[in-house]
Amino acid sequence: MPLVVIGGVAAGLSAAARARRVDPHLEIIVLEKGPVISYGACGLPYFVEGRIRRPEQLVVYTPEYFRKQRQIDVRTNSRVVAISHPRREVSLESGARVHYERLVISTGGRCDPSAIAGGQQPHVFTLHTLDDATRLRAFIAEKHPRRAVVIGGGYIGLEAADALRRNGLRVTVLERSPHVLLRDDAHWNALARRQLELHGVELRCGVEVRSIEPDRVADFPADLVIVSAGFKPNVELAAEAGVDIGRTGAIRTDDRMETSLLGVFAAGDCAEVTHLVTGRPTWIPLGTTANKAGRVAGANAAGGRERFPGIAGTSIVSVFGMAFAATGLSVSEARAASFSPVSARIEALSRPGYFQGTKTTVELVADRATRRLLGATVIGEQDAAGRINVVATALQSRLRVDEFEQLDLAYSPPFSTVWDPLLVAAQQLMKEL
Amino acid sequence: MPLVVIGGVAAGLSAAARARRVDPHLEIIVLEKGPVISYGACGLPYFVEGRIRRPEQLVVYTPEYFRKQRQIDVRTNSRVVAISHPRREVSLESGARVHYERLVISTGGRCDPSAIAGGQQPHVFTLHTLDDATRLRAFIAEKHPRRAVVIGGGYIGLEAADALRRNGLRVTVLERSPHVLLRDDAHWNALARRQLELHGVELRCGVEVRSIEPDRVADFPADLVIVSAGFKPNVELAAEAGVDIGRTGAIRTDDRMETSLLGVFAAGDCAEVTHLVTGRPTWIPLGTTANKAGRVAGANAAGGRERFPGIAGTSIVSVFGMAFAATGLSVSEARAASFSPVSARIEALSRPGYFQGTKTTVELVADRATRRLLGATVIGEQDAAGRINVVATALQSRLRVDEFEQLDLAYSPPFSTVWDPLLVAAQQLMKEL
Repeated sequence: MPLVVIGGVAAGLSAAARARRVDPHLEIIVLEKGPVISYGACGLPYFVEGRIRRPEQLVVYTPEYFRKQRQIDVRTNSRVVAISHPRREVSLESGARVHYERLVISTGGRCDPSAIAGGQQPHVFTLHTLDDATRLRAFIAEKHPRRAVVIGGGYIGLEAADALRRNGLRVTVLERSPHVLLRDDAHWNALARRQLELHGVELRCGVEVRSIEPDRVADFPADLVIVSAGFKPNVELAAEAGVDIGRTGAIRTDDRMETSLLGVFAAGDCAEVTHLVTGRPTWIPLGTTANKAGRVAGANAAGGRERFPGIAGTSIVSVFGMAFAATGLSVSEARAASFSPVSARIEALSRPGYFQGTKTTVELVADRATRRLLGATVIGEQDAAGRINVVATALQSRLRVDEFEQLDLAYSPPFSTVWDPLLVAAQQLMKEL
Repeated sequence: MPLVVIGGVAAGLSAAARARRVDPHLEIIVLEKGPVISYGACGLPYFVEGRIRRPEQLVVYTPEYFRKQRQIDVRTNSRVVAISHPRREVSLESGARVHYERLVISTGGRCDPSAIAGGQQPHVFTLHTLDDATRLRAFIAEKHPRRAVVIGGGYIGLEAADALRRNGLRVTVLERSPHVLLRDDAHWNALARRQLELHGVELRCGVEVRSIEPDRVADFPADLVIVSAGFKPNVELAAEAGVDIGRTGAIRTDDRMETSLLGVFAAGDCAEVTHLVTGRPTWIPLGTTANKAGRVAGANAAGGRERFPGIAGTSIVSVFGMAFAATGLSVSEARAASFSPVSARIEALSRPGYFQGTKTTVELVADRATRRLLGATVIGEQDAAGRINVVATALQSRLRVDEFEQLDLAYSPPFSTVWDPLLVAAQQLMKEL
């Protein structure tokens, strides 16, 4: 009575590995449409950059590893084309059918350049699979493109812009919305723009791309185009099988990562999770979420009883060495979720000047009525990661600003200032409340 | 009806500044025994090292600043020798008396080398005040000592050892207890020892120093000695005035930082605070605590109503570039506090290898019965600070390990691994529970 997992990257393999731990005797089959499994998709921009030299460096586990070490039957080049839940079986492109007792859907998401006119030309790429990155790297090596346009100013878009610029290309980023990195915040956007421009990347916001010409995109010359916009969950397979799709467009799940069909679980870029701050279903495709929700899906599919509490949407991206980190809600997201947001932004040194402290910008958002912390951004250098994680932990714990202000954070001069920038921001926010 | 603050460094000045904000019209007098106020005591080892060139760089505010900008009357060289609470007045060494309505005692703490035979020789120093550090620096410049013994392997002791070694001295650290950096943990101690030895510092634990000879301490030749052991709260003034002293030896306070005498508050290295994990009074002298508790003392002394929730004892110290960070309870401390501690220790890369990830050691301690997280250590590089702060936040929020395991921490390759070392440690600890 096997457990079948559709998808062999982050969520799928986390689910399979966890299911094995919960039930050492369960038959587990992973069906992956592509030729490789278990690659670190978040590392792809660094392979394009050249920092990672061989694509194999991004592959964490092989099918053989799973087969031998975990007794998990991983089948690559096995694209599932239909799920028949009444018969408890999936059909493969090859015509083969695989029976399941429990199913985990981790079909991921995609950017679809073919949705843009001219999106299927040889100089147009996405950056989602190891194959995408390998072909892009080969294209750069062979064709020596000089001007690139990146469509989409999300994480991957700016990481790609950074990687291409470091390869000597001139780069323009075109973003449809008024802001980059998925945060509708004017100051955040201004700092990202300045950082891009400082490093010779042109950013145009409010530009909707309808077609890609052989030598340009809109008014911007381009002999290389990367499409990193319009990322969508791959839900067609699930929807056709009768699995409910949520309002976000991703697969609806409960807190056990089970879908509307009993015994069918979903996790990763194709699935919704609960937002820890709003308490509502959300779709924020991130590798961390895929791994954690996948684990819970796998545990429950194997007969366990685990709960996924949800996410704060914590993210961090390096733009030419500067970290842009965010968690929880922005002011406008908080307003849309019916909070009364109040925010405070401060700039402070990350460490004393004699330890090369650099400017760190912290913005905290809280609810006026309850003082509950709702979100934050931290923009700065390496230590931004730890600081945003402190806020993410506070969000999961539903801390109020007055509680946050008293956090016992570590201090000595090589690491921080005696009042950590997070606490300075909290003090400022207390004055606004 | 003035507020009088005894002590013009971290806790005292935080109290005075906060009192001013709570009551713009209050008369506030700060009495500081030394010639300067508001110096960053935690920066003293870096002045000894030479990284900070002028002692003035460690002075944050001058008495003039407080007088003009905050209307706070700061009097230096004003040592208080007695408190008469029935008369609501303090007596100065000069014979002058100062009336108070409310009093904040922030008399700090001290290492007393005169408690050791030979401790008052000219080559024996403490490292507690700006004057100590200035005299030490001058001694090094003039006398060119070649062999140093540091008595005490706490934070200041190891920072001093690091600073002296970087000045070319041969350094031996003598510590009375079996472990350094105030953590009774064998692995922690082994890593600290290895780091010290790698950088040419000899560490001897279990050595009680009873006397300092002109040219040696015990069997160790020394033409310079730093005493950083036996740090004690300065409570004599308070005790003589009838203020209750707690079991830790520091001034007993409630969660408003008020002492047993109504209207008399205490904060900083002289005072107890609540430990967030045990719920009991504790005395862990740290600058962060002094500042935060001082603020609360000042607010309440000025008529506010604020509460200090307590501390987790979060600390971090750099030993030749490696961070040793701790928060909450060690296994043995947890046992002493009647928990049933279980711990797990993991080693993981801080970031992927292609981003120069370095080895990070995380140990988490939890209570077996409740799964509540009790403490942690993180040993690694710069990002150790952020990681220990995540645990500190979890301790304040009383998170369980199964909740901690699901934290939505930031990930992208320049900053972390997709499973942050903290989460890997939590997964390991879940297996042990």
